[in-house]
Amino acid sequence: MPTKNKLKIFNDPIYGFITIPNSLIFDIIQHKYFQRLRRISQMGLSYLVYPGAHHTRFHHALGCMHLMQKAVNVLRFKGVEISDEEENGLLIAILLHDIGHGPFSHAMEHSIVNDVSHEEISLRFMEELNKEFNGSLTLAISIFKGEYPRRFMCELISSQLDMDRADYLKRDSFYTGVAEGNINSERLITMLNVVDDQLLIEEKGILSVEKFLIARRFMYWQVYMHKTGVVAEQLLMGILRRAKELVLQDVKLNCSQALYYFLHSEINEQTFNAKTLTIFSKLDDFDIVAAMKDWANHEDFVLSNLCQMILNRDLLKIKVKNKPMKISDLNSHSQALMNKYNISQHEADYFVFTGELTNQAYQNTSQKINVLFKSGKIKDIVKASDQLNLKALSKPITKYYMCYPKKKM
Amino acid sequence: MPTKNKLKIFNDPIYGFITIPNSLIFDIIQHKYFQRLRRISQMGLSYLVYPGAHHTRFHHALGCMHLMQKAVNVLRFKGVEISDEEENGLLIAILLHDIGHGPFSHAMEHSIVNDVSHEEISLRFMEELNKEFNGSLTLAISIFKGEYPRRFMCELISSQLDMDRADYLKRDSFYTGVAEGNINSERLITMLNVVDDQLLIEEKGILSVEKFLIARRFMYWQVYMHKTGVVAEQLLMGILRRAKELVLQDVKLNCSQALYYFLHSEINEQTFNAKTLTIFSKLDDFDIVAAMKDWANHEDFVLSNLCQMILNRDLLKIKVKNKPMKISDLNSHSQALMNKYNISQHEADYFVFTGELTNQAYQNTSQKINVLFKSGKIKDIVKASDQLNLKALSKPITKYYMCYPKKKM
Amino acid sequence: MPTKNKLKIFNDPIYGFITIPNSLIFDIIQHKYFQRLRRISQMGLSYLVYPGAHHTRFHHALGCMHLMQKAVNVLRFKGVEISDEEENGLLIAILLHDIGHGPFSHAMEHSIVNDVSHEEISLRFMEELNKEFNGSLTLAISIFKGEYPRRFMCELISSQLDMDRADYLKRDSFYTGVAEGNINSERLITMLNVVDDQLLIEEKGILSVEKFLIARRFMYWQVYMHKTGVVAEQLLMGILRRAKELVLQDVKLNCSQALYYFLHSEINEQTFNAKTLTIFSKLDDFDIVAAMKDWANHEDFVLSNLCQMILNRDLLKIKVKNKPMKISDLNSHSQALMNKYNISQHEADYFVFTGELTNQAYQNTSQKINVLFKSGKIKDIVKASDQLNLKALSKPITKYYMCYPKKKM
Amino acid sequence: MPTKNKLKIFNDPIYGFITIPNSLIFDIIQHKYFQRLRRISQMGLSYLVYPGAHHTRFHHALGCMHLMQKAVNVLRFKGVEISDEEENGLLIAILLHDIGHGPFSHAMEHSIVNDVSHEEISLRFMEELNKEFNGSLTLAISIFKGEYPRRFMCELISSQLDMDRADYLKRDSFYTGVAEGNINSERLITMLNVVDDQLLIEEKGILSVEKFLIARRFMYWQVYMHKTGVVAEQLLMGILRRAKELVLQDVKLNCSQALYYFLHSEINEQTFNAKTLTIFSKLDDFDIVAAMKDWANHEDFVLSNLCQMILNRDLLKIKVKNKPMKISDLNSHSQALMNKYNISQHEADYFVFTGELTNQAYQNTSQKINVLFKSGKIKDIVKASDQLNLKALSKPITKYYMCYPKKKM
Repeated sequence: MPTKNKLKIFNDPIYGFITIPNSLIFDIIQHKYFQRLRRISQMGLSYLVYPGAHHTRFHHALGCMHLMQKAVNVLRFKGVEISDEEENGLLIAILLHDIGHGPFSHAMEHSIVNDVSHEEISLRFMEELNKEFNGSLTLAISIFKGEYPRRFMCELISSQLDMDRADYLKRDSFYTGVAEGNINSERLITMLNVVDDQLLIEEKGILSVEKFLIARRFMYWQVYMHKTGVVAEQLLMGILRRAKELVLQDVKLNCSQALYYFLHSEINEQTFNAKTLTIFSKLDDFDIVAAMKDWANHEDFVLSNLCQMILNRDLLKIKVKNKPMKISDLNSHSQALMNKYNISQHEADYFVFTGELTNQAYQNTSQKINVLFKSGKIKDIVKASDQLNLKALSKPITKYYMCYPKKKM
Repeated sequence: MPTKNKLKIFNDPIYGFITIPNSLIFDIIQHKYFQRLRRISQMGLSYLVYPGAHHTRFHHALGCMHLMQKAVNVLRFKGVEISDEEENGLLIAILLHDIGHGPFSHAMEHSIVNDVSHEEISLRFMEELNKEFNGSLTLAISIFKGEYPRRFMCELISSQLDMDRADYLKRDSFYTGVAEGNINSERLITMLNVVDDQLLIEEKGILSVEKFLIARRFMYWQVYMHKTGVVAEQLLMGILRRAKELVLQDVKLNCSQALYYFLHSEINEQTFNAKTLTIFSKLDDFDIVAAMKDWANHEDFVLSNLCQMILNRDLLKIKVKNKPMKISDLNSHSQALMNKYNISQHEADYFVFTGELTNQAYQNTSQKINVLFKSGKIKDIVKASDQLNLKALSKPITKYYMCYPKKKM
Repeated sequence: MPTKNKLKIFNDPIYGFITIPNSLIFDIIQHKYFQRLRRISQMGLSYLVYPGAHHTRFHHALGCMHLMQKAVNVLRFKGVEISDEEENGLLIAILLHDIGHGPFSHAMEHSIVNDVSHEEISLRFMEELNKEFNGSLTLAISIFKGEYPRRFMCELISSQLDMDRADYLKRDSFYTGVAEGNINSERLITMLNVVDDQLLIEEKGILSVEKFLIARRFMYWQVYMHKTGVVAEQLLMGILRRAKELVLQDVKLNCSQALYYFLHSEINEQTFNAKTLTIFSKLDDFDIVAAMKDWANHEDFVLSNLCQMILNRDLLKIKVKNKPMKISDLNSHSQALMNKYNISQHEADYFVFTGELTNQAYQNTSQKINVLFKSGKIKDIVKASDQLNLKALSKPITKYYMCYPKKKM
Repeated sequence: MPTKNKLKIFNDPIYGFITIPNSLIFDIIQHKYFQRLRRISQMGLSYLVYPGAHHTRFHHALGCMHLMQKAVNVLRFKGVEISDEEENGLLIAILLHDIGHGPFSHAMEHSIVNDVSHEEISLRFMEELNKEFNGSLTLAISIFKGEYPRRFMCELISSQLDMDRADYLKRDSFYTGVAEGNINSERLITMLNVVDDQLLIEEKGILSVEKFLIARRFMYWQVYMHKTGVVAEQLLMGILRRAKELVLQDVKLNCSQALYYFLHSEINEQTFNAKTLTIFSKLDDFDIVAAMKDWANHEDFVLSNLCQMILNRDLLKIKVKNKPMKISDLNSHSQALMNKYNISQHEADYFVFTGELTNQAYQNTSQKINVLFKSGKIKDIVKASDQLNLKALSKPITKYYMCYPKKKM
């Protein structure tokens, strides 16, 4: 076990202080792979809607680790045995669970690194760090991969009650100023328990879990899927797709070396090797935005217009409905644009398009939340809660949107 | 209109500063009838569960007035005409809407002032103050009584979207430290609008209203109907009923003159006259608790034991279930107590009893919440919300409880 | 050591949750001596100025214990050895350090329990509880009395850096809404260290200590010595003195048995025996306020007027200056009152009087705050801080006030 | 006057909601010159010390405008006449007061745009916008330049009590999590008054002003001049100076067009023309950081090393003292580096250097803070405050630092 020699702390507007428990973890935080997260925004382009939303994946990762420390204390207090090594594994696993995120992750994954999930890349980073730190991350990796036999530890990293959600909802709510999304992470953690290596919520925590699911749903529609944010993200995806398209046609595009690499390569799980990881580790928000700033003056009509829209926050219009949009509306917008600027249907499609938004507040199939009753009984929360029709929260909601240019374009 | 001459402010941990808009309102606040609210706790005995819950009806009333100022500003901004006189009427009506509350209101109303609601008593106080202030409260009274023709003004005072709820949920959540109940009053107010003199919520506020209803439900079960709080309140009701019983048997009981009056009189709407109001205005938490402290040494077994239980927070046990309790369980507890202390069934009933708790998060019959869509359409929120099954919130929930003595009694 | 069996928590709006570490401490909290603190306001009559200031000594005591848990963790982290028994002693000592406070402590101590400090009474309570709990409080008592050889433990209970101040400044600031008094208790605690059994602040904490001293000074003048609060407290002292005076003249006064005892006895350290303690344990805010409410109708001009003034918040006027008041001004107010109501000089003195307010932000003589430099050197903070002239904070400030009736009296 | 047609609001974690008062102001905010502030961090590289400090100049500008709205309300309430046009001028002036800031302003001003202050550039932007908006900003410009005859309006924009400080201290404190710097902006604003067109603080606000000055001093040393932040900023200055140096030697450096322009031109007040402004408007944090990321691989030893240090947060060491550093220490570090890497003295100076930090909490010469006493007298706060030796705060404090490489370099 690493020695506890110095009290290292980070200031956090939410929790006050975040304490770094030992020097191994401190060294991981100091590593350039982790420092890079300082340059990756947690919420992508949401700051165009919520101007306070500039917090980073770096800060979120520290926050998760802080909550994990609390969870370990609560569970030990209740008699759940967790060794020092396991504690360390849990802390490292949660600290690094998101290290594989690239800049504007969602847009990236749907445009230039199609086939490799951020979880997979996180794992690659962890394995790389494990080499550098002489195997000290082995247990953490086992927990992260869900292979560690004590299942509740894996659930603390990834489940509907994991420390990831417990921090990000609170943090995103805090920085956006959307108070409705604020959850009482501490109360939730206080209500955790473990039976047969399974993570459970105690009976008296039922209302808090409901509240948590509702808050998540609220944040989903009010923040993550805010219609202006959706437009911005679609525009960014368009930019990256268009850039790739132009590159394939040998059109010259200025950008950083790391971004150049990803625009020019077809990356998938097989081709994603050590070199890819090294280059990926150099990619952050600054590569993307700096490229956008350059491309805003590019001669390509599509590329330059998309970039200007984001930079000047002069976005497309968007309509959101509960039913699919009419194709005829889409076509008339599209046709008007093609006529006005003499562009092709394919080019017009970057400015006129439809899409769907889906959310399911409670995943009732894969990872249920189980409730531990005083009597010892264990029930799925949907059945445990007699008050709110949680089934309603289990029903996926789908909305349909259409984007099209403002009149003045 | 009263002159605005001096900037009087109250500190409020929640809103920062509460500004008193004019000297008439300042004089009303200075009146002893209003000052008395400083000695009436907003949440009764809930501090036995939530030690921070010592805020008063005085502070809540100021908070409501503050929110009403915001609501008036928002509505005027949206083009709803509100004259200075109407504004003043709204502010006074909300300031005084709860002035008729006695100490531990719920327990009182179910024991010694059976038949007169606090709304009725609020009205009496307002009429009395109207005399003293030469008719300046006439418009406020009209709004409070729901008689003022501009219906939305009455709805700002009393409806599912009134400023009363907007403050008390936020305030109770703040002082108890139950963050889950915190609502974003300011956002709700920002979403208000008026069509055809009806108070509405704008379309983009639907999620906020849902969140507000959920928060209210949460507070209801987690705080207002917390099982320990329920026991305490039932014990207090028992104390007051027992005291009245003893008084009818001419047993001597020390207490304040005001409390003496109410223990010795049968008050109802007809007999509640000017004198009653004067005496009622002298009744506050201190009369009740001081009496309890004296009666804790009374020779009557029932009275002294009930008082000690509350004072030392050594309460009855309580079981809460979703189905009615079995009579047999009740009887066995009851019988044990009668045998042990040689008391009658009637006396034992003060320590062994059952009851029901009911809550309906959304009142879908009487006072609907209507949503104003961008298209101009207006719909009941239950129909407007396609996401959460708000019908679930409209279903009244009933729980059943049984109280009985701890083993050591 | 007591067993840790159940996670008992209290909600706290400030710290979130306060965890009760073991069943001995839980049982102490459950004891009626401690429960009584629920009925003693931390800030006396300050709520007449700051309507949110209704928090109790009960809540403050829990808060202190919470911070002590943090301090123990920080010091252990830095290598200071603290055994489980010592930790328990520290927690109990801080939990009970204020248990000897009566209602409206300051006013009481200057009127009816002249010669016995609340520290002395706290000690009596602790000794009594030590008997009931079979000696489990012995170490706590030793720390509380400053006799325990490891001096820093005593300093955590009572010094310029103790956990008492660390909680009450934060708590009073929170409930009054006076944000300027909010201190960063957690940062201060994080900067604590121990050398040679002496409690020190680390070099990088110098600014935080300065900030803390300034905040304390701010709270002193803005809150604790707020001129309206000073009047109210002086009036309350007058009430108690007048009551005692009347009792000596055999005038009948209604009040609770506990208050009756103290009005009729001369209590000092010698006569304060076990019986006195028992009766003292029954005295709380409700005895005082209930008496005031009764006495507001007493025939004695002085007593009834003083009581009405507080109850209706219709107080004396007050002038505060940096120089002593002129006797001539005092006399003219006094004479006017005597003439108008035909009362004696002695009676008029209850309504017309002068006084002094003194505060010294940093006590540079008795209990210095020492700073530990990275070099290992230790210096008094006044010498360590080169930035702010902390000497200025060491200089006692005295202000002078005069109270006199409003014109309409 | 612009019409008030739609309630536009921004979410702010600090103030809740920020309301945009009219469509002219809304259009200014929408302008790309203003939108650009979304990409300029308020606190530069401070996020390397305080990971939450990612808020932008965009958000700060909105916050200032919000506080100005409050100030206008308070002053009008007190009878100070402010016309609607003047209000609009005040709001626009404060909204745009910082629009001339470039990225990492302090570092820029000391390296590549030496001679033009950000105030001057703000003015250029305002004049440009005034043209686009047909003269609607004329009054705002007059206030901003300090030429408007009603002096207090200029003081609301720039003085020791201006709305700029009132927001940035609060905001920086909030996002860094350094609670000690939190000021009660609302109380300060409530205490403002105007006599003879001069902005004053009322007597009862003296303590709040002291608190504000102390908080500013605290933030200065704890945050703005935090030693790690100082190192980072010096490194950034070094990068920009080195880049300029290399460019003069015709060494090729990749960077954005806007940055290229400033690296290749000598800009001063005379040469700063309309074209310069246009290019300046395209410069933001992304140009600088993206350049750093490219240059981290440059063959120049100095440039690449400086860039890597910031990107990987692997900075120089720093010592801070109250006395100037010894030249001999400096030289030995310098010599060691020159030997090890075979670099020149000039190159070594980028890694080994000294500097000074100076702060004066209260500027007692130029812009005093005047206090308005109830008697009508007006005094400088230094003389008005009898409690704290504010002279101590007027004394400039100077500290000396030395930076040098870590051993491993």
